[in-house]
Amino acid sequence: MKYISVENMVRLIHETGIEQLFTELAGYIEEDYKNWDDFDLSPRYASHTKDGVLELMPTANRELFTFKYVNGHPGNYKAGLQTVVAFGVLCDVEFGYPRLLSEMTIGTALRTAGMSALAAKYLANDKLETMSMTGAGCQAEFQAYAFRAIKGINKLRVYDIDPKVTEKFIYNMDGAGFEIVPCKSAEEAVEGGDIITTCTADKQCATILTDNMVGQGVHINAIGGDCPGKTELHPDILKRGDVFVEFEPQSRIEGEIQHMPEDFPVTELHRIFKGEKQGRTNERQVTIFDSVGFAVQDFSLLRYMYDKIQGTDYYETLNIIGELDDPRNLFGLIKKAA
Amino acid sequence: MKYISVENMVRLIHETGIEQLFTELAGYIEEDYKNWDDFDLSPRYASHTKDGVLELMPTANRELFTFKYVNGHPGNYKAGLQTVVAFGVLCDVEFGYPRLLSEMTIGTALRTAGMSALAAKYLANDKLETMSMTGAGCQAEFQAYAFRAIKGINKLRVYDIDPKVTEKFIYNMDGAGFEIVPCKSAEEAVEGGDIITTCTADKQCATILTDNMVGQGVHINAIGGDCPGKTELHPDILKRGDVFVEFEPQSRIEGEIQHMPEDFPVTELHRIFKGEKQGRTNERQVTIFDSVGFAVQDFSLLRYMYDKIQGTDYYETLNIIGELDDPRNLFGLIKKAA
Repeated sequence: MKYISVENMVRLIHETGIEQLFTELAGYIEEDYKNWDDFDLSPRYASHTKDGVLELMPTANRELFTFKYVNGHPGNYKAGLQTVVAFGVLCDVEFGYPRLLSEMTIGTALRTAGMSALAAKYLANDKLETMSMTGAGCQAEFQAYAFRAIKGINKLRVYDIDPKVTEKFIYNMDGAGFEIVPCKSAEEAVEGGDIITTCTADKQCATILTDNMVGQGVHINAIGGDCPGKTELHPDILKRGDVFVEFEPQSRIEGEIQHMPEDFPVTELHRIFKGEKQGRTNERQVTIFDSVGFAVQDFSLLRYMYDKIQGTDYYETLNIIGELDDPRNLFGLIKKAA
Repeated sequence: MKYISVENMVRLIHETGIEQLFTELAGYIEEDYKNWDDFDLSPRYASHTKDGVLELMPTANRELFTFKYVNGHPGNYKAGLQTVVAFGVLCDVEFGYPRLLSEMTIGTALRTAGMSALAAKYLANDKLETMSMTGAGCQAEFQAYAFRAIKGINKLRVYDIDPKVTEKFIYNMDGAGFEIVPCKSAEEAVEGGDIITTCTADKQCATILTDNMVGQGVHINAIGGDCPGKTELHPDILKRGDVFVEFEPQSRIEGEIQHMPEDFPVTELHRIFKGEKQGRTNERQVTIFDSVGFAVQDFSLLRYMYDKIQGTDYYETLNIIGELDDPRNLFGLIKKAA
């Protein structure tokens, strides 16, 4: 089984170029979404505990089966640990053999940002200058690079409730050629933004964005509202705009739309990518991508990584599946070593 | 994350001694079964394809979360590949961090045999001499060692439909001090056996054992009937004996009892281990362990391995979860490497 460590993931990002990577990755996500009907779409398995949640997110098409392990422990930072860590596995369906194990803490940030920018490619206006960002935490840099790669956005208006987090963002982005305006409030950050990305981290229903803050024609990329009890947008925004989701049954539970009635209209993105339905219909429309993160994006990331590392040294090999001289002689492995 | 490769699993088995390992492992399984009510018992996730099945088997108690990936591809041997391969992961519940990745192809054979012998410790008669084995495939050697470790059985009567598989078994067991009688039929193998282990590999409902072949007082260890459409015992045997299972809802779908009415009485083994119910009530009773393999045994194996490797060199370390200077600065990993 091939194995991509954190070091090799970081090397791969640098040597590919992060914007080139987002362009390539978005292509993989787009392709998989266009083949949406080929996927086995299952709800995630979640084990909820007093400190957080531990999840398995599997999916498969006719060729590949993938799953991601991911946790969510809001209090981990107190122990100096990450609140979310993840890894993923890709198996071939034909033989059921695991072929790739990859770090996916960074990978999840990559696929989330890649999906956001891909959605904006279909939903946002063409003439764009500025992205407003409320929340400058773990996702922020990835979002910025992905939107520059895919939508050419270079100006960022950034607000975080913690000024140190904004400083961290500015430090991380230094030298990358972005024009960054740090803001003192969400209102200030949102002013003049063509795209508004909300990615705050608090695990509660906070109203980061109210309807009066959202101008005509804006595309909202709502990343932070991604589990039951965690939302960022005032319901009036959802009523005014058109809402797009990854996988409706999951988004109704985890997304911004969790407070809306069951028949509140939403459109699954694969329909837009396939051209079955139009996303943006006019320049004044408000569009909202209610992102929660879905297993198909993880599938796309793992499929992309697996293709990408072939013929490179971005991976190591793990002997986790023994090779048997006779496939019916498992004990032979033990006998031989005696 | 600690990582146990196939080589290290084999080393650990040899250096511990396989019978000592079965004794220790059975202790872990017994302890976990006694704390049965602490477990989050979920159905497995299975993706069925034309060639086989790919599964995730998760479970958790208040301290640990584990899952196993395992496939089942009956035709793999044609390509020189194993029909079943597996690996497992153990995470702590407190932080949601993965702590152990282990090979589990051998591990699954270990925990299956450990569970079989543990069930027999409670269900079989005390005075035992001989185990009859129908099917001498990948599970057979593990079963033989586990039953000697836990029930002291030294005489084996062995039949496999393929004489080469019987030869493989005899070769693998050579020098271990067992008294082995190769047999020409299942009937011959079963004659005089105090315990009958059925572990044939055909993925179909075959009647390996009929009622007239089973004497009084025998304990049947039915390993092979472990998925829908795959059974080994004639229903009359189930009606005559008392049937014990790991987890009733799963066994009703996958076990020997899949052909029996929904109200056919069975007893979950944890009740026997906890002393809530008596297993064997008299010397003439026929007892049947209808084994299908359950996530709690995988949990026990991973918990055992994790304890066992501490302070040893039976593992390597994988950098699959990056260590961040600031847990809120994921992009710092990429910035630092620039």
